[in-house]
Amino acid sequence: MPGKTAEEMALDQKEISVAEFFEKNRHLLGFDNPAKALITVVKEGVDNALDACEEAGKLPHLKVDIEEEGKNKYSISLKDNGPGIVKEQMPSIFGKLLYGSKFHSRKQSRGQQGIGISASVLYGQLTTGKPAIITSRTDKNSPPKRFKLKIDTVQNEPEILEEEELEDGFEPGTEIKVFVEGKYLQRYHSVDEYLKQTAIANPYAHIEYSNPEGEDFDFKRAAHELPPEPKEIKPHPYGVELGVLGRMLKNTDSNKILSFLQNEFTRVGRTSAEEICRLAEVDPDKKPGKLKHSEQEGILDAMQKVKIQRPPTDCLSPIGAELIKNGLEKEIDAEFVTSSSRDPEVYRGNPFQVEVGIAYGGELEERDTEKVKVMRYANKVPLLYQASSCAITKALEKTDWKRYGLEQPGSNGTPKGPATIFVHLCSTWVPFTSESKESIARYPKIVKEIKLGLQECARDLKRHLSKKQKGKKEKRRKKIFSNYMPLVLENAVELTGEGEDLSIDPIMQRVIDEELVEKVEEGEEDE
Amino acid sequence: MPGKTAEEMALDQKEISVAEFFEKNRHLLGFDNPAKALITVVKEGVDNALDACEEAGKLPHLKVDIEEEGKNKYSISLKDNGPGIVKEQMPSIFGKLLYGSKFHSRKQSRGQQGIGISASVLYGQLTTGKPAIITSRTDKNSPPKRFKLKIDTVQNEPEILEEEELEDGFEPGTEIKVFVEGKYLQRYHSVDEYLKQTAIANPYAHIEYSNPEGEDFDFKRAAHELPPEPKEIKPHPYGVELGVLGRMLKNTDSNKILSFLQNEFTRVGRTSAEEICRLAEVDPDKKPGKLKHSEQEGILDAMQKVKIQRPPTDCLSPIGAELIKNGLEKEIDAEFVTSSSRDPEVYRGNPFQVEVGIAYGGELEERDTEKVKVMRYANKVPLLYQASSCAITKALEKTDWKRYGLEQPGSNGTPKGPATIFVHLCSTWVPFTSESKESIARYPKIVKEIKLGLQECARDLKRHLSKKQKGKKEKRRKKIFSNYMPLVLENAVELTGEGEDLSIDPIMQRVIDEELVEKVEEGEEDE
Repeated sequence: MPGKTAEEMALDQKEISVAEFFEKNRHLLGFDNPAKALITVVKEGVDNALDACEEAGKLPHLKVDIEEEGKNKYSISLKDNGPGIVKEQMPSIFGKLLYGSKFHSRKQSRGQQGIGISASVLYGQLTTGKPAIITSRTDKNSPPKRFKLKIDTVQNEPEILEEEELEDGFEPGTEIKVFVEGKYLQRYHSVDEYLKQTAIANPYAHIEYSNPEGEDFDFKRAAHELPPEPKEIKPHPYGVELGVLGRMLKNTDSNKILSFLQNEFTRVGRTSAEEICRLAEVDPDKKPGKLKHSEQEGILDAMQKVKIQRPPTDCLSPIGAELIKNGLEKEIDAEFVTSSSRDPEVYRGNPFQVEVGIAYGGELEERDTEKVKVMRYANKVPLLYQASSCAITKALEKTDWKRYGLEQPGSNGTPKGPATIFVHLCSTWVPFTSESKESIARYPKIVKEIKLGLQECARDLKRHLSKKQKGKKEKRRKKIFSNYMPLVLENAVELTGEGEDLSIDPIMQRVIDEELVEKVEEGEEDE
Repeated sequence: MPGKTAEEMALDQKEISVAEFFEKNRHLLGFDNPAKALITVVKEGVDNALDACEEAGKLPHLKVDIEEEGKNKYSISLKDNGPGIVKEQMPSIFGKLLYGSKFHSRKQSRGQQGIGISASVLYGQLTTGKPAIITSRTDKNSPPKRFKLKIDTVQNEPEILEEEELEDGFEPGTEIKVFVEGKYLQRYHSVDEYLKQTAIANPYAHIEYSNPEGEDFDFKRAAHELPPEPKEIKPHPYGVELGVLGRMLKNTDSNKILSFLQNEFTRVGRTSAEEICRLAEVDPDKKPGKLKHSEQEGILDAMQKVKIQRPPTDCLSPIGAELIKNGLEKEIDAEFVTSSSRDPEVYRGNPFQVEVGIAYGGELEERDTEKVKVMRYANKVPLLYQASSCAITKALEKTDWKRYGLEQPGSNGTPKGPATIFVHLCSTWVPFTSESKESIARYPKIVKEIKLGLQECARDLKRHLSKKQKGKKEKRRKKIFSNYMPLVLENAVELTGEGEDLSIDPIMQRVIDEELVEKVEEGEEDE
């Protein structure tokens, strides 16, 4: 065999653009198959629209419209009432992968990577050859701008095909329209379901939706105030790694390591900073850029040892127990609904918080499946796929549901019963198992918190079920009692010979009113 | 709430480098936890080394050395006897993500994306702050070159810290040494196991390995010839998408659509090309760059309808049934080994091929688990993680193992028994479920082929088990026979009164030699 030389091989080496990479690996971004692709496009658009509205302090109002344009071909358009996008940024935001504002920010948002929406554009041009149409208007005083664009995958740069200024008639906000190969389904994994679940977790958003069958949905608001805007935080010492610390030391404006620690990290005051330097045996006045490798290691070690307060949690934006309950009640006609919002916790220096809701009975009795329905959310975004690898599923399966009145096949499994279980994890950095953001990695601390949240709500459910059970029992006993009571009374009257004109009804009424039956029974149970 | 304006938001928008992206999302590349990180670094190094040796036509000889350098800190060095790397390419290959030679090539190789080895460098600098040390020498006539380098994550460019020319004393080939945070385990998921499995699937490679406990392993060659080098192929019409077709039309050197179809695709001759044009109602002489959007769609549609031969399969490099058997026999002392290599198939225009092996009994009887052990491979690389989402697992669970003599709990599950099942999928483009390349996406066609391969080997196993079973039965019957025969003979002698000096032993011997027992029994069964 001849074989290649190093020189020959060198000629083949070249840079791969991130757009080429994701075009070839599009299943990594949620474009595995046509049905999922349709949902992914809607999801990425909705994520961006809700983030933008919230950041601008506007109550979101979204219009989603999907139309069939041919066999397995659809157009998807999504319009929001957000702040709009300045003209210069429009091409890059939609026509360049890995471009965005949220990647480096430490506060909760739906988008994280700056990939999602441009991936939709990429998928559209790949499958239909058509450009995306982006329209945006920042306010009433400036005209709407429209771009038709594709992505130049070799360069990972937007390729602008048309650019125009529109006449009036376009309300401020942003609209994206893409043409994709897709498949519209009306099952569990559907755009309809996706938007319904989005409406539940974002009750302050108004979402209008028209599906390819021409059906119109109007998910109205259940709340009329935005949640407090999450604040941006600095990194926490417990979550930092040596390489990142090295870069921070190199780039800081602080002159001394003592001030560096206080300025660049959250929750580090003078006392903690001094303690870190002392433990690491590093001169607190030393210039950050001058630290040797061994000193950097020492600082990192010391940061893990010194007791430092947890990061602040105003960087999070939970839904809140009340709104979860409202959201579930609004969309599900259940017999019983409960919810809980746990205190924030921290994994690898990242704050996170778990919220749970359970709806039981009512219309859920009529479902054609025995398993409970699980609605998984991360940062208010529904997760429809990859349930089996998700921390939420793991926590659910590790919970002993029999104790709480639901059936559970085997010792570990999805519980059965007429229930919908809602789980929301919010964090400044959700550890997704892939870029398609469908499943939360199973960090033990996260799984534990979810389990605790589930148990809280499960206890409420148990109380409800016990009460219901008891109610049933009473009803049955009262029925027996009222069947036989008249006979007993009649006989008693006859035997004593007294009060032959005694009416039985008022006595029965007293028995029922004063719940004598129950008291007797309780007495029995006490024995 | 004040909220941000579009102008304020624009200031936050920026480009994210692919290195920053993967640094933050390193679990996507197989660096989820310290134990897995150690395996991933070895895996990426071994992949590259084997690919390079094969491409250069050299029988691979690898030396892997892992040493503990402190608490949870390890150095990993890997030296190959490959073609070496020219000096100019060294920094980019190891210090830049998405850089390589295999991404655009349509032939089987272990590496695909140009991410793996630079991700190891990135992980090393992130967790230990230390640079990678790369040494390479292309031949005896040029001196070895050495670089110490890191990755500038903001730019995704190599940052060279040191560069030197070494004296002699370094054999031609390439060595990489990285320092990482890791955890060395000796369980199923371990570097030891990973290299053992690699040796089984690459029997023409010689791998020496020294683990952190100071134990030395020497996986010797079971074959002394390289497999034929896979050939590069052009895309097949059945696997192309509109966006890609559009780009090909734009970039082609062909002047007419008729020649474009023949030159740029595999298996398209003049007749097929004419047929495509006719069906699409496109003038065969039209310039490729002049096709309207609707004409491009027409060509794509027509390409799917015209009957075109399958792609050639010399772009694949299967292991072969014989070498799989050799490999399994070399590393497992089993009672029975079988293997099969199926004919190539095609999914989405990509050729692929499935190979299966089963080892049964012998030392496998002594394992402390009941489930069979499954060795999954893609392009000769062992897959240790994410078994549950893998096409191989799905095919295994969908096979009815009870029919073939193995236990199987439930109707779908991993079979039980003293067996190791080896499955190899090779393809020009393995559809991995994530960049960490741990699991094969479940394309129905792939799952089906794997199942067929499993069934082939399972039938061999069934035959072996039946024979064994029969053998056992015979042995038992012969034993009974030989216990009673002497008595029968003695009585016969007594009754007939003849040949009192008759010796019983030779008669017994004849019975056994001529397998009279068996003949009698077979006669019985026939009735």
